[in-house]
Amino acid sequence: MKFSSRILEDIVDSLSALPSIGKKTALRLALHIIQCGEAKSKPIIDSLANLENLKECQQCHNYSDYELCHICTDTSRRKSTLCVVESVVDVMAIEDTDQFNGIFHVLGGVINPLEGIGPEELNIDSLIERTKSDLIEEVIMAISPTIEGETTIYYLSKQLANNNVKISQIARGVSFGGELEYADSLTLGRSIHSRTPYNISSE
Amino acid sequence: MKFSSRILEDIVDSLSALPSIGKKTALRLALHIIQCGEAKSKPIIDSLANLENLKECQQCHNYSDYELCHICTDTSRRKSTLCVVESVVDVMAIEDTDQFNGIFHVLGGVINPLEGIGPEELNIDSLIERTKSDLIEEVIMAISPTIEGETTIYYLSKQLANNNVKISQIARGVSFGGELEYADSLTLGRSIHSRTPYNISSE
Repeated sequence: MKFSSRILEDIVDSLSALPSIGKKTALRLALHIIQCGEAKSKPIIDSLANLENLKECQQCHNYSDYELCHICTDTSRRKSTLCVVESVVDVMAIEDTDQFNGIFHVLGGVINPLEGIGPEELNIDSLIERTKSDLIEEVIMAISPTIEGETTIYYLSKQLANNNVKISQIARGVSFGGELEYADSLTLGRSIHSRTPYNISSE
Repeated sequence: MKFSSRILEDIVDSLSALPSIGKKTALRLALHIIQCGEAKSKPIIDSLANLENLKECQQCHNYSDYELCHICTDTSRRKSTLCVVESVVDVMAIEDTDQFNGIFHVLGGVINPLEGIGPEELNIDSLIERTKSDLIEEVIMAISPTIEGETTIYYLSKQLANNNVKISQIARGVSFGGELEYADSLTLGRSIHSRTPYNISSE
């Protein structure tokens, strides 16, 4: 791509360094920003410049504007139920369901020896420390059902075994609204294995 | 989407205001930027902040860092052949073909009465002024072959009729209804090579 302007080229370069943004997309975005002027560029500049003020919640490692995130400081939430997730996005996904009123713990990933991610790289020490408190009665493992996820759950459950907390994991099975024939065989097989009693009056 | 941080939400909002970037994509980009830190955010901030220094070439209306763009000031280019294009992206696309050694004129769009774009909204006056110079012998219409593009070519050729310049248009190698910027460079290059004289009564 031959640019007539170094300024334009710099914008395209900086945007195309982002994941899933190619040169052509970056150029289209850059031209859009140029056409709109400050109305589009200022919010991006300001919000990115504000990034340095972003904190990690001291307790649950969620992103926060303060030392503690709004979930940890919310007195209406049940502090006895702790949901362990891989990342901040998972917290948002679970919060969007409106089905959980406990608190979270963000691991920051899963154990993955191939990528050099061991237990030390994750927020596991602080999790064990938290579950030592009498306050926490149950730890829910809301971790992706992958090999690495399973390994992480297994590791965590061994670590937490002495802490007198109930350990559970989110249900796995065929997704709601999904066609059975399109479910992968592993999911389908497991969901037959871990079938639940059907209660005629429940639904 | 429920955000744990206002700072994160601001980034997602500012990015998702861009075309083709939805909330989920913006969130993924924001998290990527947060993880990479200044290495990703600083180039974006700096390049966008530099936007105010972006100029429009006084002669051809291409984007430029100076009063005149590098194509207009390049003494090795044939000043007798002027290529009229809709936008800056089209200049870049034609430059990428390495098939054209003349100079450009960026209209800034095409005549489109439905969207309220008349000849006054485009850089047509300056084009007519430029073609009055004895220097320019040929004007190549490299405008997208759409209804609006055809209208614009027709309008321009009438305006330029008295200026003693040869008017041609890029060959129909570009598929009808296609946008110029998405044409592959071979097709685009060939269509500049095999340009045909524009006959005012032909269409």
